[in-house]
Amino acid sequence: MVDLINKKKCGEAHTQEEISFLINGMLDGTIPDYQLSAWLMSVCFQGMTFDESAILTMEMAKSGDMLDLSCLGDCIIDKHSTGGVGDKTTLIVVPLLAAAGCPVAKFSGRGLGFTGGTIDKLEAIPGFRTALSTEEFLSQIKNIGAAIASQTANFTPADKKMYELRDVTATVNSIPLIASSVVSKKIAAGANVIVLDVKCGSGAFMKTADEARELAKTMVEIGKRAGKTMCAVITSMDQPLGNTIGNGIEVAECVQVLKNEGPQDLKELCLYLSAMGLVKAKKARNINEGKNYLEKFLQNGKAYEKFVEIVKYQGGDVEYIENPQRLSETQFAFEVVAEEAGYVQSLDALTAAKAAKMLGTGRDKKDDPIDYRAGVLLNKKIGDKVYKGDILAKIFANSIEQGNKSREILVQAFKLSKNPTEPTPLVVDVIE
Amino acid sequence: MVDLINKKKCGEAHTQEEISFLINGMLDGTIPDYQLSAWLMSVCFQGMTFDESAILTMEMAKSGDMLDLSCLGDCIIDKHSTGGVGDKTTLIVVPLLAAAGCPVAKFSGRGLGFTGGTIDKLEAIPGFRTALSTEEFLSQIKNIGAAIASQTANFTPADKKMYELRDVTATVNSIPLIASSVVSKKIAAGANVIVLDVKCGSGAFMKTADEARELAKTMVEIGKRAGKTMCAVITSMDQPLGNTIGNGIEVAECVQVLKNEGPQDLKELCLYLSAMGLVKAKKARNINEGKNYLEKFLQNGKAYEKFVEIVKYQGGDVEYIENPQRLSETQFAFEVVAEEAGYVQSLDALTAAKAAKMLGTGRDKKDDPIDYRAGVLLNKKIGDKVYKGDILAKIFANSIEQGNKSREILVQAFKLSKNPTEPTPLVVDVIE
Repeated sequence: MVDLINKKKCGEAHTQEEISFLINGMLDGTIPDYQLSAWLMSVCFQGMTFDESAILTMEMAKSGDMLDLSCLGDCIIDKHSTGGVGDKTTLIVVPLLAAAGCPVAKFSGRGLGFTGGTIDKLEAIPGFRTALSTEEFLSQIKNIGAAIASQTANFTPADKKMYELRDVTATVNSIPLIASSVVSKKIAAGANVIVLDVKCGSGAFMKTADEARELAKTMVEIGKRAGKTMCAVITSMDQPLGNTIGNGIEVAECVQVLKNEGPQDLKELCLYLSAMGLVKAKKARNINEGKNYLEKFLQNGKAYEKFVEIVKYQGGDVEYIENPQRLSETQFAFEVVAEEAGYVQSLDALTAAKAAKMLGTGRDKKDDPIDYRAGVLLNKKIGDKVYKGDILAKIFANSIEQGNKSREILVQAFKLSKNPTEPTPLVVDVIE
Repeated sequence: MVDLINKKKCGEAHTQEEISFLINGMLDGTIPDYQLSAWLMSVCFQGMTFDESAILTMEMAKSGDMLDLSCLGDCIIDKHSTGGVGDKTTLIVVPLLAAAGCPVAKFSGRGLGFTGGTIDKLEAIPGFRTALSTEEFLSQIKNIGAAIASQTANFTPADKKMYELRDVTATVNSIPLIASSVVSKKIAAGANVIVLDVKCGSGAFMKTADEARELAKTMVEIGKRAGKTMCAVITSMDQPLGNTIGNGIEVAECVQVLKNEGPQDLKELCLYLSAMGLVKAKKARNINEGKNYLEKFLQNGKAYEKFVEIVKYQGGDVEYIENPQRLSETQFAFEVVAEEAGYVQSLDALTAAKAAKMLGTGRDKKDDPIDYRAGVLLNKKIGDKVYKGDILAKIFANSIEQGNKSREILVQAFKLSKNPTEPTPLVVDVIE
């Protein structure tokens, strides 16, 4: 192992045998953590080739269960986001594609740090069960075309172990390690068409478009080497996506979009990502054809109905979907009021995320409890005209202290300007 | 600690408080090894400033006992070599300086890997005790002006712990870490004038003069910040120093030099290092004055007498010093014979070290036993004229198999050429 660490320290590439040795040694405990962490830090500095990353990814994927989805058809789409603020696209893309006849087998995670997690959002619907057995998961997709579940304990144990160590050794921030972690889980989850939404900007892990491109390129190349049809859409995360940040409040916003209402940016991105899935699955010739085809399922209510079907199937209380305001009912509400007129020049995603997290919507540690009802509603976004006294945002809180603190933070997210500003385009680049 | 690792990963400098936290956490076990090793690897890539290195050095020095030598006088010289092949200068420099009236308090180490250790060499003299208590050590210096002892268990425990972790995480090779380790031990050992012999070349840890200069500069700057008078002499280790490699056989060669015989390169370097000590201690105006003064003590036998006195005092059998051929008496002897005429163009130090180690003269692990009598005698060195059939080297072995293997290796150390070659000068540079 010392030789392997030294090899990576000197910038050389590992062989298949070396990476197998490393992953097996990590899993059976014969390689101690202090050697793994030194190796991980070398990877942070020296990187890995696409071939090395692909080998690492396959070793991690093979370390646990691997789902066989062939019983569901020959083309199963998966969509994955690298995580952003107000990023709720899964809740729309899954029923939308299912309504359009494409089965979707979606595993999602919980939120950590400043990003929310799809599983937490779904659990804001009383009764909603995310811990499905493999049999339940597959039979649901056979019956209604879609399921959204938390990953079971048997997926990619090597990735879990490695991530835990990275988290406490400042080695999270490495493109080949991030890419291997993401793609290994996707490979184990069994889809053959994978659409990645790689966020860049203040509210994302990748702060610049160049970093996001590098991560996207790495994930696409790894996936291709594993025989998957890959595509990565790089999207802007300078301001939050849509108008809500929280758990229940984000579900409510998704219900709006599924009814062909709701904020335009969120609807556009969901149509784009879903259409990209159709194109990659060879079910649409291009993005526009795919978007036009899919938009009908928002207009005719089929996507909404599919979402209701999913919620019912997984034990959720549909009354909360029919009366979505109940998803953000809190004891207290606060307002951020414009003190001058102008245009919203910037609405910093990270600051807005911190304001939401202050309300208890997120967690610092894996087992922290969260407040499913609290959240932030953004009435104004970049480019919007603002009059003095306008309500820029509303805060839903279950504690006056948290609400006040959240407001103090949220105020700082808004920068107004005398001159009109255009928001940057949501889709920055596509890597395929 | 994650923040500290991340800070170093990003190339920032640590504060005094941060380094104290790190060393204390390492010693009391509150910082786990996997975090320390990730930090160590960051240091390998990002380095440390002289100020940071000096803080780390002082924290390590303070982690255990610190010797107070003020009872011995106001100017105590210490000499330290970074380790080379056939490097036996300590055995000459210590009695030479003591004979000239400069007390020397010398702690030495054992050999590991391809480098020998002074303590092992001394233990080739039957009865020689290197494990002296602090009281014995100080009283011996008071009485006869010099003592050479192995470091006691209470010196720099932080360095010991850190070195153990570096050894198994491929983080040994870092100039600030090497420098801090060396200088912390020197500071704990209490001398106020420190002459460093920094070796460079194939038989040294630093392969190039530039690397050696950087290490030397770092050690000198650290020592100055701790209030020490520092000097580093960078010397060539392309070929072994002197004509012998082993344990007893090296002691025998030192006896020759102390009698003003023996190989010129070894004598010259010992005079140079000792003279540098005198200059730094303000007891000579320049190197030449120092060398001329010291050479008298080789000529008049006083240095040899001092060595005999040290051996007696530490329980060694003086008969072996009076009959030094007994120090390399082995069962078998082998010869490396020149197959063609020419000049020795190179005599690779690392290859020669491996040939000696094959005989059991060194160790791979801390507790491996060693053969005190086995060794290599080099009859020809770089620049020497060779006739076909000349004996290039002799091998003294206690096993025919080891002797044969050693010869196979040693043959490869010699490169002959038709044209005369000059050896590179021994002293490459001086950093002060």
